[in-house]
Amino acid sequence: MARIALDAMGGDYAPHQIVLGGIDATESGVDVVLVGDEAILTAVLDAAGASLPIVHAAEVINMGEDPAAAVREKKDASVIVCARLVADGEVAGMVSAGSTGASMAAAAIGIGRIRGVGRPAIAAVYPIGIPTVVLDAGANLEVSPEHLAQFAVMGSVMAQVYLGIEHPTVGLLNIGEEPSKGRDLEKAAHALLADAPVRFIGNVEGRDLGAGVADVFVTDGFTGNVLIKAVEGVARGVGTAVLEALASDDDEQVQAAVSAVLPKIMRLRERFDPEAYGGAHLLGVKGTVVIGHGASSRIAIANALRVAADGADRGLVARIEAGIGG
Amino acid sequence: MARIALDAMGGDYAPHQIVLGGIDATESGVDVVLVGDEAILTAVLDAAGASLPIVHAAEVINMGEDPAAAVREKKDASVIVCARLVADGEVAGMVSAGSTGASMAAAAIGIGRIRGVGRPAIAAVYPIGIPTVVLDAGANLEVSPEHLAQFAVMGSVMAQVYLGIEHPTVGLLNIGEEPSKGRDLEKAAHALLADAPVRFIGNVEGRDLGAGVADVFVTDGFTGNVLIKAVEGVARGVGTAVLEALASDDDEQVQAAVSAVLPKIMRLRERFDPEAYGGAHLLGVKGTVVIGHGASSRIAIANALRVAADGADRGLVARIEAGIGG
Repeated sequence: MARIALDAMGGDYAPHQIVLGGIDATESGVDVVLVGDEAILTAVLDAAGASLPIVHAAEVINMGEDPAAAVREKKDASVIVCARLVADGEVAGMVSAGSTGASMAAAAIGIGRIRGVGRPAIAAVYPIGIPTVVLDAGANLEVSPEHLAQFAVMGSVMAQVYLGIEHPTVGLLNIGEEPSKGRDLEKAAHALLADAPVRFIGNVEGRDLGAGVADVFVTDGFTGNVLIKAVEGVARGVGTAVLEALASDDDEQVQAAVSAVLPKIMRLRERFDPEAYGGAHLLGVKGTVVIGHGASSRIAIANALRVAADGADRGLVARIEAGIGG
Repeated sequence: MARIALDAMGGDYAPHQIVLGGIDATESGVDVVLVGDEAILTAVLDAAGASLPIVHAAEVINMGEDPAAAVREKKDASVIVCARLVADGEVAGMVSAGSTGASMAAAAIGIGRIRGVGRPAIAAVYPIGIPTVVLDAGANLEVSPEHLAQFAVMGSVMAQVYLGIEHPTVGLLNIGEEPSKGRDLEKAAHALLADAPVRFIGNVEGRDLGAGVADVFVTDGFTGNVLIKAVEGVARGVGTAVLEALASDDDEQVQAAVSAVLPKIMRLRERFDPEAYGGAHLLGVKGTVVIGHGASSRIAIANALRVAADGADRGLVARIEAGIGG
């Protein structure tokens, strides 16, 4: 599989869990390069009895820092070095669970946009029911109708590459089905999308998520970010409510049944867990960039690396280039 | 309890289910007045062996119609007559499961805004976990920071009246905790909310819904509408996934357990059902206005009427007037 740079210093559980995730991904065939403080990473690798190539990076961008300023000032930060490796062609992509803003800034400045892409966008896969690609999930809080049309092309490629759907359908996230619904943004985007080289099916609503109405939902980064965070929270909330309801029942028969079905429900919970999906993609830059949750564990990092390598192997970037150009 | 006008001609299952819901609400003490075609409503009442006061309305606004035009042209539509009864002080509030746009237009024009309210807003209660009032859920797709500050006051009154919380906390729906996050709208609203006569706790995110972080979430009507529809869909999707996972298990022990826990999970599902909450409120007009789902059944209508009467009895409108003035 493709070679992927891993920002070993980014994330709440860095560097330990990040390095362990890197080791796991290597075992499933990903060519992982650790990026970060060489002495620290060597120590973590030694403790784990493993060996991985390391590219030294002397600095780290922390969660609280202003991303734009940090990217300008810390030229040798791990996330910047990752982006540089992508730009130089040393690796096909990068994974970071550090500050999302810093990853976006590093990728936009260090790697650069695909020709014709106005704004890179964050794409997330909503995993419940029929999986759905949602973008923008937070890179651009305000966008133009033209940006939404480009998101539709990038999201379609993502659905092809990751969901295996040859001709994915695209919906415009809105407050009603009729083309006249929504803000000026949605009204103008509806007309542009109808002419875009995608399989546009019209407006979709929040309730259509996961229902197979469209494979790709396009929206601005404010709405998309609120949406993705809310559905994660609700999925967890409902799961918890189910467990609590079962556990609190005083019917003996129900109590006996709970211990039998609990493992099943716990397995189901994993499906709703964003960890299992490894992270969100930054689409529109010249490399496969996966942004993990800050709280990424070893499992999440390994998944993110596999997803990044998979995208690189299947030509995610080249296919977006062709789609935007076409 | 208070006297409430019921638009008996609005909704997918009108007039039959609507009238039956009216009869049910009467039995729990609501003083219901049916509004609609007298001959039709008399026939439905006769068939049900019940009797309710009827105010005749010769016309109906259908779902497909342009709300603003319909409200101008159909002066004798059932929803307009409901609003007129509120304005004339004949009833304390109204319930309609017809076109949301028509209900909003009828209320705004026919009943009128509370002094000092720039824009009436739709408030919904998110029922999972710790109940949360979310507004605006769709009345105003684009708003000013000042509107958001007014929504905070109105939403706080709603939490006092319906959730029984004396000093409700208010959060601004945003993409991160820091005051500097969000669009220009959120940045300006954050400053205004800090000075508003509410218990503002700062920014909240989608994942905080139902988690007890804030009792009231304020946002623009586009974001709020997408959010509310999405969380309803996710709650249903997760419920379905739990049932499917249990039903499809081939472990005999699990199969035996499923029949025992199924009734419990089905009861839980009802909690996530928007029907149980009767509908959303249009806050900021001089009457208690509850807008039901188009697909409202008898149960949903009876709940909506109880909620409307409850709000009227507890002085919802007077308390908003006092809050906005203060």
